[in-house]
Order: sequence, then structure tokens, then C-alpha cells
Amino acid sequence: MYRIFGDVNSGNCYKVKLLATQLGVPFEWVNVDILQQETRSAGFLRMNPNGKIPLLEMPDGRYLSESNAILHFLAEDTPLLPDDRYERAKVLQWLFFEQYSHEPYIATARYIVRYLGRPAEREAEFQSKQAPGNRALDVMEEHLRHEPFFVGNRYTIADIALFAYTHVAEEGGFSLKAYPCIQQWLGRVALQPRFIKLG
Amino acid sequence: MYRIFGDVNSGNCYKVKLLATQLGVPFEWVNVDILQQETRSAGFLRMNPNGKIPLLEMPDGRYLSESNAILHFLAEDTPLLPDDRYERAKVLQWLFFEQYSHEPYIATARYIVRYLGRPAEREAEFQSKQAPGNRALDVMEEHLRHEPFFVGNRYTIADIALFAYTHVAEEGGFSLKAYPCIQQWLGRVALQPRFIKLG
Repeated sequence: MYRIFGDVNSGNCYKVKLLATQLGVPFEWVNVDILQQETRSAGFLRMNPNGKIPLLEMPDGRYLSESNAILHFLAEDTPLLPDDRYERAKVLQWLFFEQYSHEPYIATARYIVRYLGRPAEREAEFQSKQAPGNRALDVMEEHLRHEPFFVGNRYTIADIALFAYTHVAEEGGFSLKAYPCIQQWLGRVALQPRFIKLG
Repeated sequence: MYRIFGDVNSGNCYKVKLLATQLGVPFEWVNVDILQQETRSAGFLRMNPNGKIPLLEMPDGRYLSESNAILHFLAEDTPLLPDDRYERAKVLQWLFFEQYSHEPYIATARYIVRYLGRPAEREAEFQSKQAPGNRALDVMEEHLRHEPFFVGNRYTIADIALFAYTHVAEEGGFSLKAYPCIQQWLGRVALQPRFIKLG
């Protein structure tokens, strides 16, 4: 059986839990407390030298890190990763967009609020995340104005990756009021078979 | 023929040029001047709404963005992307590591120096990139202490992605003196068939 090391309130960890649940892949969940620095312990660093969750342990004991690499691995040869070569590349394009242009702003702003209680010493950093986070939402909104999902007119791991932090963006100070197409897409994702909520 | 929109001094663009050259894939190179805001022009945003280079135009006129998504697309079914499912996942793991834990620090510090001339108003940001950039180099050094390349004991697109900004890290203020295994790996990459230099 797979083992997933994660934090139940982390969007990156939720991505993996949601996909494994939707695919019907059995897994054991192991809670890791990031505020207690458990990802920096010697034992954890032996499993993932980059000290981050989620981390997937294979049935044979090997490890895989990086949430979107785990999504891609689990989704291979399933309906959640397209067969078409160009569509698969577009899925990866959105996965990299998520990790480079979206998560560092929207997830980090939410982390400062939700995990740290928005302390004064991180307020400038929190504020600095707002404009680039909104730019990422602008790119998503523009795309979703024309298409129901991110790739190939159907639900894929690109939607899972982007849903994870977008649906809780308001916890990071982002208003979704100006993003009607994103709101409709959030609703479509939540209606997918075997959907589970964050937490 | 493929068309690559890029900047010859950008590591992200160099990744694509290096891979296409090593694979013998013919392409036309179109220079884009990021300092002149050419990636923010209406014409460019129609091709890539996220306003970034590199951008790949397919022979049929469709577009693909995100450097590492382009690498993965071009490398499919070639020796530079492993056949084994786990090894392919590890390649993606390193590609996401590069974009999340390496490029935002090492490439951005280099950008501040090389493109902007290290202006006083970006000095605090430049300094803030040093510690996390060195943590990324630490993770690479530790891995390369045991293995000659990043995945499967041979040269793959994981090496191309990480080589791009690591080999010019000193331009961003990072010393490679403390990283002997990285230095040896840089030499191994530069010896690969049809290797070309940045620029």
C-alpha cells in the first residue's frame, strides 16, 4: 500500500489525498506537523532531503516528493491524465504554472494567516503576495472564460492542482468576487465523483 | 518546424535550446526582449497569457509554455526521459524542485545582477535569495555525492533543467567552491554529445 506523509490542512497534501481517493488507490495517511519542524528532522530528511510534504512512500519503500510530480505519477494511465501528447503537455504546463506563479503567492499568504496567525513581522510579506496572486487568478479566469476545465474540456490533475489553493484563496486575503468563471469552475470540481473536502 | 520564443541569456530558454539541439529537433529561434516588456505586449499575451518565455510554437500553430513542461514534451520517447515509470516520476520531482526551490532564488539573484545591474532598491531582495539558493545547492550536492546524474545514473532532462541556472549561479552571488560534487556534475553535463553553451 502507498503511504502519504502530509498535513491535512495543506493544499499541496490535499491534492494527493483527493486524487488517490478519486482513483480508488488505497493509502495510509501519516500526519506530519510542519509547525513542530517535523519535516526538518533527521528521520524525515532521510526520506526527503528537501524537507517538504507531501511525500509518497511506494509499496516497495521508495519515495517520491513534490506534490505535482506525485499527481502525475498516480494519474498515469487513468482518465485524469489525457492520452494525447499535446494535452498531457498542457497538463504539465498548468502544473508548473501552479507551482511557480500561483502557489508561492496564494498558498504562502494563506499560510501566514492560517498557520501563523498573520503576525506583524510577516505583514509586509503577506501584502507582497496579493498582486502576483491576483495575476495568477486573472490568468485562470481568462482561461476559464472559454473552457470548463484547464485541459481538454474535462477534469484532469491540472484541475486538482489548481483547485487545492484556489478554493481556499480567501483565507489568504484574496477575494474571488471578481472571478465568476473561477467560482463556477470550483463548483464543477466539487461535483466530481468521489470528491472529498480539504481537512 | 518548431519555433522557440526566448532570450539567449535566460537559463529557462537555454534549457529548451539545449535539449532541442541535443535531440536534433529543428527549430527557429525568435528573440524576445524581456527588458523591453515584449512578453507583456498584447501580441505575446495572445500566445502565452501568463506573459513568460520560453514559449514553444508547434508546427501546427499551437503553443506550449513553462520551460520544464516544454522539456518533458520534447523528450518523450527519447533517451533523455526514462522509460521506467518511477524514474520518470523522479525526473518530474527534480523538475518541480528546480522551479520551486532553486530557480526563484538562484535565477532571480542572477537576474538582479546580470539584467538589472544590482540596483540599490533590489539589494534586500538579492540578499534574501542567498540562503534559500544555498539550501537548494545543498540538496543537489548531497544527491550528487552518491550519483553521477539526477535520475537513473544517466543524463536526462532533470540534468538539463538543473544545469541551466546552476552553471551560472556565481553570476547571482553563489559560490560553488563548497560544492565539489556539483562542480564535477557540471563538467559531466558539458561533455554530453551536442552540448551547446548558454548565450
